[in-house]
Amino acid sequence: MRALVSRINRELAATPRPSLALKSLGSRFSHHHHDSPTKKEKKSSYILGPDLPDIWSPPRSTPPCPPPSQTPDEIRSGIVKEVYQMKESISKVPGLAVVLVGQRRDSQTYVRHKIKACQEVGIRSLTAELPDDCPEDEVVNTVSSFNEDPSIHGILVQLPLPQHMNEEKLLNAVSLEKDVDGFHPLNMGNLALRDREPLFIPCAAKACIELLLRSGVDLKGKNVAVIGRSKVVGLPLSLLLQRHHATVSIIHAFTKNPEDITRGADIVISAAGVANLVRGSWLKKGTIVIDVGTNPIEDPSSEHGYYLSGDVCYEEALQVVSAITPVPGGVGPVTIAVLLSNTLDSAKRAYGLS
Amino acid sequence: MRALVSRINRELAATPRPSLALKSLGSRFSHHHHDSPTKKEKKSSYILGPDLPDIWSPPRSTPPCPPPSQTPDEIRSGIVKEVYQMKESISKVPGLAVVLVGQRRDSQTYVRHKIKACQEVGIRSLTAELPDDCPEDEVVNTVSSFNEDPSIHGILVQLPLPQHMNEEKLLNAVSLEKDVDGFHPLNMGNLALRDREPLFIPCAAKACIELLLRSGVDLKGKNVAVIGRSKVVGLPLSLLLQRHHATVSIIHAFTKNPEDITRGADIVISAAGVANLVRGSWLKKGTIVIDVGTNPIEDPSSEHGYYLSGDVCYEEALQVVSAITPVPGGVGPVTIAVLLSNTLDSAKRAYGLS
Repeated sequence: MRALVSRINRELAATPRPSLALKSLGSRFSHHHHDSPTKKEKKSSYILGPDLPDIWSPPRSTPPCPPPSQTPDEIRSGIVKEVYQMKESISKVPGLAVVLVGQRRDSQTYVRHKIKACQEVGIRSLTAELPDDCPEDEVVNTVSSFNEDPSIHGILVQLPLPQHMNEEKLLNAVSLEKDVDGFHPLNMGNLALRDREPLFIPCAAKACIELLLRSGVDLKGKNVAVIGRSKVVGLPLSLLLQRHHATVSIIHAFTKNPEDITRGADIVISAAGVANLVRGSWLKKGTIVIDVGTNPIEDPSSEHGYYLSGDVCYEEALQVVSAITPVPGGVGPVTIAVLLSNTLDSAKRAYGLS
Repeated sequence: MRALVSRINRELAATPRPSLALKSLGSRFSHHHHDSPTKKEKKSSYILGPDLPDIWSPPRSTPPCPPPSQTPDEIRSGIVKEVYQMKESISKVPGLAVVLVGQRRDSQTYVRHKIKACQEVGIRSLTAELPDDCPEDEVVNTVSSFNEDPSIHGILVQLPLPQHMNEEKLLNAVSLEKDVDGFHPLNMGNLALRDREPLFIPCAAKACIELLLRSGVDLKGKNVAVIGRSKVVGLPLSLLLQRHHATVSIIHAFTKNPEDITRGADIVISAAGVANLVRGSWLKKGTIVIDVGTNPIEDPSSEHGYYLSGDVCYEEALQVVSAITPVPGGVGPVTIAVLLSNTLDSAKRAYGLS
């Protein structure tokens, strides 16, 4: 059975589909509608969460169990439709430019996946590949030329950059309006400030929320443990969860007894980048687990010489959780779908389409 | 004894001095120096915390007990000296402009305190008072004129604004270089991103960290419960604590069983704005409490018809904690000292002084 699950997971890498592997159960799911809409709520948005006033009130009941999800497919088919409509109505399509510096195999693989995903939904894509030892200014110039190109609506500088390059400077070069990765400090600040809206939300963080919301999980009042605090996942995710009125605890490498925090969590989201960090004993019965980790583990017997493992000990977790995302095939495909969605949104904004 | 403590607290409002009321004890205090300095640590700063790589390692020991603190006096005397030096060397002093819209008595009181504090340290201050019903554009024009005035280095729009005004628009009008309140989204984003540095950190959040650091508390690895998530305190504080490698849980009005989280915390910082929200039973033995709440409680017998209460039930907490800040006289005076310090920093930046 263990071997089967792990084989299924590997196959899921190729066919990005069911994203919340449900280990259960009856449809105990119910929605809460305790709050009547107020004036302020009109500013609400699905991803950014409702704008609720802080009125202190007594605790609510325990978390429901989510129904299954087809999140990446749902998002992609929506994009295909909208790209088609854009082409029909104004003869334009969204364009994504990817800047890849150096020869890292994992980065090359990620970029290839992104480009392929663009092709599948009708988004035009362009890759600028630069050598490891090229001068920083050349990368800046490449980014600048994409900034000025009106057919490009999203620019993505693939991380990590070579050691000798200044990541801050290169990310700063990306125009705010094309920052589909959402790493610009102004986007991050507008994500943190609950009465504002960023132009873009970092893809993996948005993917986690998409997965939870589309699975019918009501985040308000849930205790969520976020493991990891990178700008790519943990930081924007913790900010986004707070906009959804979850109670967030952020665990990192300096946290003492992280398992004490995860054991109290209704939802555990791990993006630490450490294989098998989260054990079954870290989780309370019925919790929901989102595993963002994708850690390559050497394995001479597998096709590419390695396989991918999440941060969570999947076999152990399965005995405890109500739902968990597999690795690969869980958050990854949704993250790519969100990148496409961010690019589409950017193009719509550029062409004045609502 | 209770009456005495509460009288002492009220007197502290007038003479802003000892800020961490120590309810103990032997000098069990010790510093940790587990990490040898790395290249990256050179980018460190006192308030923003050391830039440490996320290397997962086993837990450390329990929190030490802090020595007493004279934080606001220390900060102010440093400012007096630097303002004097600035005047001597370049014949300039820092300038702070306060924009006050409407007639709220509490806002008028706060502004009066700030102006008085400026006078005491030699910072030039200017208040623009506008009527409650003035057009929004008039406030924008006032802010813009301060933006253009080279003798003004900090601009503060006193919140809350009258209901009919757009807070976002008016705060946006403040130039990034003069945003001494640190509410600009770019400042907030640069605070959130641990490899960047904001020009300003919101005063109350910075005050809490000043209090803890100057009291010798090592934040790394501590479990901190932050109650409240406003842009004024809770949000920037949770970001700043994470830069210091504390493990942060953010409690808000939608949190279920907040006492379960606070009971696990080595440090509890409350900025909810709810009098007596935090009871003694919420706190574990020996915890450190910072009370940012300043809630006016009607009291016909007192001079102004009200007295100020914190968020924490002080009498109950005293039985449990190792240290707690009183209200008034705790975080408040430090916050004002930090505002002066932010204004001085801005002036130094404007005049190219290091």
